[in-house]
Amino acid sequence: MSVLSQRADDALPAFDRAMEAQARRRLDSLTKPQGSLGRLEDIAAWMCGWQQTLTPRTEKAYTIVFAGNHGVTKQGVSAFPSAVTAQMVANFAAGGAAINQLCNAIPSTLRVIPLSLEKPTRDFTEAPAMSAEECAEAFEIGKQAVPADADILILGEMGIGNTTAAAAVAHAVVGGNPEDWVGAGTGVNPQALAHKREVVADAVRLHRSAMIDALSTLQHVGGRELVAMAGAIWQARRQRIPVILDGYVVTAAAVPLCLDAPDALAHCLAGHLSVEPGHRRLLEWLGTKPVLELGMRLGEGSGAQVALAVVRAAVATFTHMATFAEAAVATKEA
Amino acid sequence: MSVLSQRADDALPAFDRAMEAQARRRLDSLTKPQGSLGRLEDIAAWMCGWQQTLTPRTEKAYTIVFAGNHGVTKQGVSAFPSAVTAQMVANFAAGGAAINQLCNAIPSTLRVIPLSLEKPTRDFTEAPAMSAEECAEAFEIGKQAVPADADILILGEMGIGNTTAAAAVAHAVVGGNPEDWVGAGTGVNPQALAHKREVVADAVRLHRSAMIDALSTLQHVGGRELVAMAGAIWQARRQRIPVILDGYVVTAAAVPLCLDAPDALAHCLAGHLSVEPGHRRLLEWLGTKPVLELGMRLGEGSGAQVALAVVRAAVATFTHMATFAEAAVATKEA
Repeated sequence: MSVLSQRADDALPAFDRAMEAQARRRLDSLTKPQGSLGRLEDIAAWMCGWQQTLTPRTEKAYTIVFAGNHGVTKQGVSAFPSAVTAQMVANFAAGGAAINQLCNAIPSTLRVIPLSLEKPTRDFTEAPAMSAEECAEAFEIGKQAVPADADILILGEMGIGNTTAAAAVAHAVVGGNPEDWVGAGTGVNPQALAHKREVVADAVRLHRSAMIDALSTLQHVGGRELVAMAGAIWQARRQRIPVILDGYVVTAAAVPLCLDAPDALAHCLAGHLSVEPGHRRLLEWLGTKPVLELGMRLGEGSGAQVALAVVRAAVATFTHMATFAEAAVATKEA
Repeated sequence: MSVLSQRADDALPAFDRAMEAQARRRLDSLTKPQGSLGRLEDIAAWMCGWQQTLTPRTEKAYTIVFAGNHGVTKQGVSAFPSAVTAQMVANFAAGGAAINQLCNAIPSTLRVIPLSLEKPTRDFTEAPAMSAEECAEAFEIGKQAVPADADILILGEMGIGNTTAAAAVAHAVVGGNPEDWVGAGTGVNPQALAHKREVVADAVRLHRSAMIDALSTLQHVGGRELVAMAGAIWQARRQRIPVILDGYVVTAAAVPLCLDAPDALAHCLAGHLSVEPGHRRLLEWLGTKPVLELGMRLGEGSGAQVALAVVRAAVATFTHMATFAEAAVATKEA
């Protein structure tokens, strides 16, 4: 079952290249050497192309953190106990986590959506992580979570064990060797890391023939929060809302969508490069360059949230700078 | 004449390693895997060590842009006419430049200090750029520009021709070949670029024996805005105010201080990596890693200003996150 339905109104909106070209012309008229704002110029033009305007907006930013629990933790793949997922959700509600402070420092409305934490997914070395119905339900929750008035969406996650799910999804979608995709996550020891690799290899081997598109992949070796993030990304695209992806788990949740539509993630910006080694490989596979490289590996949307500051800087310069003509500054050619 | 006087109260304050260690202990107690905020943790601990507190502050940020004109422009080393320096100062005053928008988006008090724009420095292929008195005056202006109440200082510059001065200073201080230090600046053509290399080589050859410390180097092949930035950096150190350096010109203004005191720039953070190729070499020589790599090459303090958002994110997480104990979250070891 492809995410793309047969209904015409379900088609993916395309990037507006004509609007991007207009934005580039404006950028070249502003009081700076052409191209001298580098990535800020690219981001501003990209925002214009998706929002279809020369006055892109980032004021209404929403940071949505999906949380899920994972049956595969019984394999000893994480340094923290599963109970930490719910404890961290309580910490988000109390305002004590990293993402709370980052959403205050770089203003964004934080929403945390726990997904049946009391009912972890199944251990995917033994059975599909979810039923097709559970997967469809989580995808729908992700779609519904996207606010109609969002200017930009930041996605994050919390789920003890979910770098194992991310590695399995990445391995299933991109291929390569299991060790390419498995890192230390929250910090397992070398022995546990070796076992984590086996777990990922076994899971993908077990379910390979059943993983044929985005939802079937996420259903078999993903987790509820990964599925919900994929749903949110899909819905954001339908609404032309730019998305900032966080680290390894968010990116792994996103890439299966490319199985259903090759350019499904064109409206997504890679907010940062995680230390988790598989993340670099996923971004290379996507052919995208992260905005930030700050050695982060926390999740919660934290790296993407910091990248929001860069997007706002890009939009601020694009929107409010004077042109050479307005400021009576001589151009190179004058 | 060394910048360091013989007076005891002029000695450079040292980084507080004990406070840094306390900050690291707090970081390890916060609700996240240890080290998972990466560079944000390093920056927070660094702020604590310089400000000598576990409640570092960034609210009172000042962005100071020094502007100067350069006699060497008569050699045709810049793509823009010299008149643009004063035109851009007017643009700063009118609020139309990139740095104005960035200081609004990432709040900071912008101050622009033009330095005798009507009297460019001399063409340093023929004579020292400044007299010793002119140099001392510009250094003093830079020192006086540092507000007593600043929590953090962002430095920027404007000066048509000043990447040529920056290249000459970098070549004089670090050595290497002239071509290592010369890039396209605001965008000169290949022929002008080749001439720019000769200009830098000639200037350093002409003045080599006279350039023995920070001020004599900046006097002979620098420019007034470079000298003033060096003064501001030196004064900030005396006040224990952390500084965010911008790109190639700001960094080139800073490095001669290492001739007078090897750790003179320990209180400085490299805000970003400029596209100007010499900048990477200067940062490598300093043994420091830029916070951002956004392909920027504008100057005005623009890259450093974006980096202020990262510093604020670092301080926000450090200051306000809950500890494992406060949030009743299980630790790895529990």
